[in-house]
Amino acid sequence: MPENLLRTRVEAIRRLARRRAGRPLVNVLQKTRGEDVAAAMPHLAPAEQRFVFEHIVDDGMAAELLVNVGESDLANLVKQLPLERLVELLDAMEVDDETDVIALLPEQIREQVMARIEKDDRQHVEELLAWPEDSAGGIMQPVAFRLHADANCREAIQALQESEDVESVFYLYVENDAGQLVGVASLRNLLTNPPNTSLAEMMVTEVITVPPHMDQEEVARVVSRYDLLAVPVVDDNRRLQGIVTVDDVIDVIREEAAEDMMLMVGVHQGEADEQAGVLQSVRQRVAWLLITLVGGILIAELAKFWEADIGAFPILAGFLPVVIGMGGNVGSQAATITVRGIALGRVEPRDILRVVWRESRIGLILGLAYGVMLAIYCLARFHQPLFGLGVGIAITAAMATAAIAGSIIPLTLERMGVDPAVATMPFVTTLMDLVGGVIYFSVTTALIASTL
Amino acid sequence: MPENLLRTRVEAIRRLARRRAGRPLVNVLQKTRGEDVAAAMPHLAPAEQRFVFEHIVDDGMAAELLVNVGESDLANLVKQLPLERLVELLDAMEVDDETDVIALLPEQIREQVMARIEKDDRQHVEELLAWPEDSAGGIMQPVAFRLHADANCREAIQALQESEDVESVFYLYVENDAGQLVGVASLRNLLTNPPNTSLAEMMVTEVITVPPHMDQEEVARVVSRYDLLAVPVVDDNRRLQGIVTVDDVIDVIREEAAEDMMLMVGVHQGEADEQAGVLQSVRQRVAWLLITLVGGILIAELAKFWEADIGAFPILAGFLPVVIGMGGNVGSQAATITVRGIALGRVEPRDILRVVWRESRIGLILGLAYGVMLAIYCLARFHQPLFGLGVGIAITAAMATAAIAGSIIPLTLERMGVDPAVATMPFVTTLMDLVGGVIYFSVTTALIASTL
Repeated sequence: MPENLLRTRVEAIRRLARRRAGRPLVNVLQKTRGEDVAAAMPHLAPAEQRFVFEHIVDDGMAAELLVNVGESDLANLVKQLPLERLVELLDAMEVDDETDVIALLPEQIREQVMARIEKDDRQHVEELLAWPEDSAGGIMQPVAFRLHADANCREAIQALQESEDVESVFYLYVENDAGQLVGVASLRNLLTNPPNTSLAEMMVTEVITVPPHMDQEEVARVVSRYDLLAVPVVDDNRRLQGIVTVDDVIDVIREEAAEDMMLMVGVHQGEADEQAGVLQSVRQRVAWLLITLVGGILIAELAKFWEADIGAFPILAGFLPVVIGMGGNVGSQAATITVRGIALGRVEPRDILRVVWRESRIGLILGLAYGVMLAIYCLARFHQPLFGLGVGIAITAAMATAAIAGSIIPLTLERMGVDPAVATMPFVTTLMDLVGGVIYFSVTTALIASTL
Repeated sequence: MPENLLRTRVEAIRRLARRRAGRPLVNVLQKTRGEDVAAAMPHLAPAEQRFVFEHIVDDGMAAELLVNVGESDLANLVKQLPLERLVELLDAMEVDDETDVIALLPEQIREQVMARIEKDDRQHVEELLAWPEDSAGGIMQPVAFRLHADANCREAIQALQESEDVESVFYLYVENDAGQLVGVASLRNLLTNPPNTSLAEMMVTEVITVPPHMDQEEVARVVSRYDLLAVPVVDDNRRLQGIVTVDDVIDVIREEAAEDMMLMVGVHQGEADEQAGVLQSVRQRVAWLLITLVGGILIAELAKFWEADIGAFPILAGFLPVVIGMGGNVGSQAATITVRGIALGRVEPRDILRVVWRESRIGLILGLAYGVMLAIYCLARFHQPLFGLGVGIAITAAMATAAIAGSIIPLTLERMGVDPAVATMPFVTTLMDLVGGVIYFSVTTALIASTL
């Protein structure tokens, strides 16, 4: 459904939910795709969400909804849901989706649910839950379409016709006697080869695989670099554990990009912030603001140190914010570019000299440009040539330093094995506040000392 | 190839290119995938890039490289390449890749190339170039696997066997007599239905399509919402124009996320900044820093207005940076969360009241927490209860206001049809500098007036 029609539909669902108009809601929901109902959820209040959920007739759609909402919305939807109904919906899901939903369920419900879902599924779910949530093992589907290398095309097609439970078949994985993955073939290969061609003859033997403990971000990079529809997850003995499909990879890429953006401004998110409760959001944001506070207090101490100069020449205080502000912004720009470059694999720690050399030139040019502008303004407004010169020099130095620091910090974090996005922005801006403050007060007071 | 092996390989390529060791380089390149050679490019100097490119024996790999590098690297690679060779490589590409490369070529080469590529391709390329670069039409492949609804499975399989030029076949598109798209079938459907089933019987008739002028970001949302491998692009008459495949969608999602992050800190990027020249980068970053400069000058004017107070009580100047800094950071957090929410379709302009109500509470709680801390510090350090109270009140007010402004601004930009990420950060922080400055000076001077 195109975006504008989707909006109208979402609006209709919201209106009906708000009016508690059950029967028309059932009608609208029957004409809507599950994915679109899920897209409507974030725009509804908790009670409205539950009202919509109760009026979904189709089990597939109800299951789809549980798979596609965030943690707090999920807790809300299952709050008044009978346990049997929840188990029924879980049993209808693919195992990887089922695992994701179970992992997000409130703890007290989770164990009750685990005890009741189908035994086969339970084993798979337990295996998947054993892997870290953000690893290849944690996001894979534990089922794949697999056959022995001796089978031929005709047998493969027959197997495919019988394996209705394997929902997403993109490739056929070929195993040897020891159960090791030895090749891969596409469905298209099955169609375009004579029926009695053996899989061993037609398969590609150089299979790109990932280990189960690989970070999901790296898995996403592999799938996207080689344009795969699915990548097989194999253990140390090359035994197939499952597959990560391209639709899950898309979710990972979206998630990680959002996470990077949030981390950079110091929002540590358990889930999407705009769906979390107010107090939870406060907790997510409070910690890194402390950096800014501590930095700010240190600046106050700097000002205290130069108190006499400020008392004698109050306008000195007026240009501190612009110097540290410009430094902070140019530092944020450099940091963002570097963090993104690292995430996309275009920049890495050993490129540090090249990156710093570039950034220092950029910072210097930007600093000079704005330094001259600001010096001219100071001169014209306050008729203090030496003060104007001091402000100009300070802002140039602060901006050049900021550009360098903004690129060094993420690269250093990356080398130390820390996520380079972690609170880069509060960290860089606060550091630049301090460095800029010291530069500013030293330079200007030295220059205007004679006039004080 | 796993990331650590890839790194070793990239390192080897870089070392050999640096040493100008042609023969060993040819050997290493022959054992490396084209995608991995492309991944090595950003880590090489221009002359090294050209050296590597000259030593690629396999045409497919050379073509792959041209498709996967950025604009400035591409210009570098083709600089000394004979025109015939470039045309040869272009002719070997899929038409959508060919179009992308041609669009990125330096202008003087582009026309010469267009005149020489295969005639069939030229027509397709011209059609694709007619669509905006970031629309469905601009990113689609103009070829798709399509058949008439009367055909049966056997005929479809035969057609598939003969259509070797259609490289990425994910779905079979079914058309009626008028050439309109009436249904879609998967390759799996072809395998699991009896050979003489007609396509009309087995196809899904509710096809999700996109129009050619749809923005690529919206196309990406459609593909990801419905977990598609490809989405057909149809004109107003439902005639199939081409398909957008999931691997292109992944690139779009990466690109748009990077673009959002860059735009937020005011980096207007033509291409990835870390590959651009120094002066080009300066141009990309310079404009929005002006906002900060103008804001900074206005703050200096504020300080000038309260000059007498600062002269009498210099420490007043010392706490201005922390108040505006905390406001700026909390405002950036709110803005980032809102921008991301809009990009993911979870927040939209009409949710403004709900969002602002949430953010105002979060900002108030954060402000109170830090206001109390800072007030206690002021009191303990400077023994000025009224000044401490003033600083506490000012920071609380500034942070609450910042959280609200940080969420209102992107939502308002979105409503106005402007990309909500555009320079949100410099804009929000600068605005908060000013608002915070006025709040701070007014509150503190009012409270300590009696002591001055």
